[in-house]
Amino acid sequence: MAKFETTRVLHFGDCDPAGIAYYPRYFDLLNGVVEDWWDSMGVPWKTLFLERRIGLPTVRFEVDFRAPAFLGDTLVFSLAVARIRGKTVDLNHSVRRDDAVLWRAKQILVPTSLETHKSIAWPDDLRVALTSFQESSYAHHPSA
Amino acid sequence: MAKFETTRVLHFGDCDPAGIAYYPRYFDLLNGVVEDWWDSMGVPWKTLFLERRIGLPTVRFEVDFRAPAFLGDTLVFSLAVARIRGKTVDLNHSVRRDDAVLWRAKQILVPTSLETHKSIAWPDDLRVALTSFQESSYAHHPSA
Amino acid sequence: MAKFETTRVLHFGDCDPAGIAYYPRYFDLLNGVVEDWWDSMGVPWKTLFLERRIGLPTVRFEVDFRAPAFLGDTLVFSLAVARIRGKTVDLNHSVRRDDAVLWRAKQILVPTSLETHKSIAWPDDLRVALTSFQESSYAHHPSA
Amino acid sequence: MAKFETTRVLHFGDCDPAGIAYYPRYFDLLNGVVEDWWDSMGVPWKTLFLERRIGLPTVRFEVDFRAPAFLGDTLVFSLAVARIRGKTVDLNHSVRRDDAVLWRAKQILVPTSLETHKSIAWPDDLRVALTSFQESSYAHHPSA
Repeated sequence: MAKFETTRVLHFGDCDPAGIAYYPRYFDLLNGVVEDWWDSMGVPWKTLFLERRIGLPTVRFEVDFRAPAFLGDTLVFSLAVARIRGKTVDLNHSVRRDDAVLWRAKQILVPTSLETHKSIAWPDDLRVALTSFQESSYAHHPSA
Repeated sequence: MAKFETTRVLHFGDCDPAGIAYYPRYFDLLNGVVEDWWDSMGVPWKTLFLERRIGLPTVRFEVDFRAPAFLGDTLVFSLAVARIRGKTVDLNHSVRRDDAVLWRAKQILVPTSLETHKSIAWPDDLRVALTSFQESSYAHHPSA
Repeated sequence: MAKFETTRVLHFGDCDPAGIAYYPRYFDLLNGVVEDWWDSMGVPWKTLFLERRIGLPTVRFEVDFRAPAFLGDTLVFSLAVARIRGKTVDLNHSVRRDDAVLWRAKQILVPTSLETHKSIAWPDDLRVALTSFQESSYAHHPSA
Repeated sequence: MAKFETTRVLHFGDCDPAGIAYYPRYFDLLNGVVEDWWDSMGVPWKTLFLERRIGLPTVRFEVDFRAPAFLGDTLVFSLAVARIRGKTVDLNHSVRRDDAVLWRAKQILVPTSLETHKSIAWPDDLRVALTSFQESSYAHHPSA
């Protein structure tokens, strides 16, 4: 299973009056991580959304928050492709601080036409991007 | 099952470049709805968090997004208490536009000490608030 | 000078770890108030932006924050049209809690084409909306 | 005049239905830049706010937005200390994309007690941090 990792520092504006991460901001950070991942695959959202008029709305989330994050924490976001199907991709997210997993999420994304807001089959190049991402990963992680 | 309903108009700042609701903002709206619900039970978060130092972090979300919401849509947030346990409460959320359910969420909240960030048993008055909320509902909705 | 007033309750998600309003959220609330004001004039932004492709970006802000707002505060946003020119409108905002003004802002908005992102002259109906708004006010405030 | 520079990529969640930066998100990014600057001076906000109970609220903003930023743009935030007084510091911000200045802001921050929300004189170490920041700058930029 391929992985994409990146870090975010938890800023003041991400925290709530209890001094811990405000979960809606977690989703905002997560969406940015997914965006950076597509960018790393050579598919910037600017092109995808504004030129090709393809969106990637989320149709399902399952999230488990295990421990709070605090102001100034460095969080490691790790994203893995779990499954690609005709009109969906399943992602597994984990967010760690040092060795502790703070939260996990399963997310299902669906490619859609931004004209009709209906789902579409994965365009070939996007499927290739997702698949090659898996392939290169398998090459490096044969046990995955 | 008791219900709390309130509406939100989807504002410009809630929407993304695709012209539809940005899902992290949905969670922000949802958190405000939960806050308004506690307020309606006579437990304003100002008192709960800042004076009593009790937090209500979310430990789990399951969310299904079925259809997009658009700028200017009036959304009806409906919240129901599914189950109260010693240190948790399960909520069921639905969000409708007219008769169409746009998304649903299951949320588990846990009362915690804001000093230790550990879970605590429900204080009696909060349990009463949650329970009486259910009771008054059962009175009106005997089939629930 | 015409006035539009509306209220907002300061929610948990609007507050920072210091327990007071996080100023970027103030701007988010303010933008929603301006949106509601246009809606009250019969010009919903959905139509303006998505159909007519006219935007209303802000080109200048002057803001004085005098006193903090706290979780649960009810804030009264008051908006007045200070001046309409060919391609701009100047707004004066004040935000009060009870009788105390918490902050004030001057904002300059510019109608633009969302195709070119260039400023345009006010379309007649928008100018009429702004002007008639002032006129009804002049009737009540002859010294304005 | 000392300078602190850092970059931000404009993410999907920072943009509005017009496809350009949503200005309340600009303020959120700006606040994070100021936070990173204090961190670079050895004064993380975690310590400052949560342990020392000193806040740094903004009392005034003057902002000029000159040109829009678009999804995916890399923005260079540049921050300069304009003046330190007994209970305030004036900052000048500029935000560029390549050589084009997209917006500028003047911001006045005030050190306050988070217990009383009243302004306080700069603690010596913070004044030293601000001043030494200027000094090291003067050394490199004698004409500043």
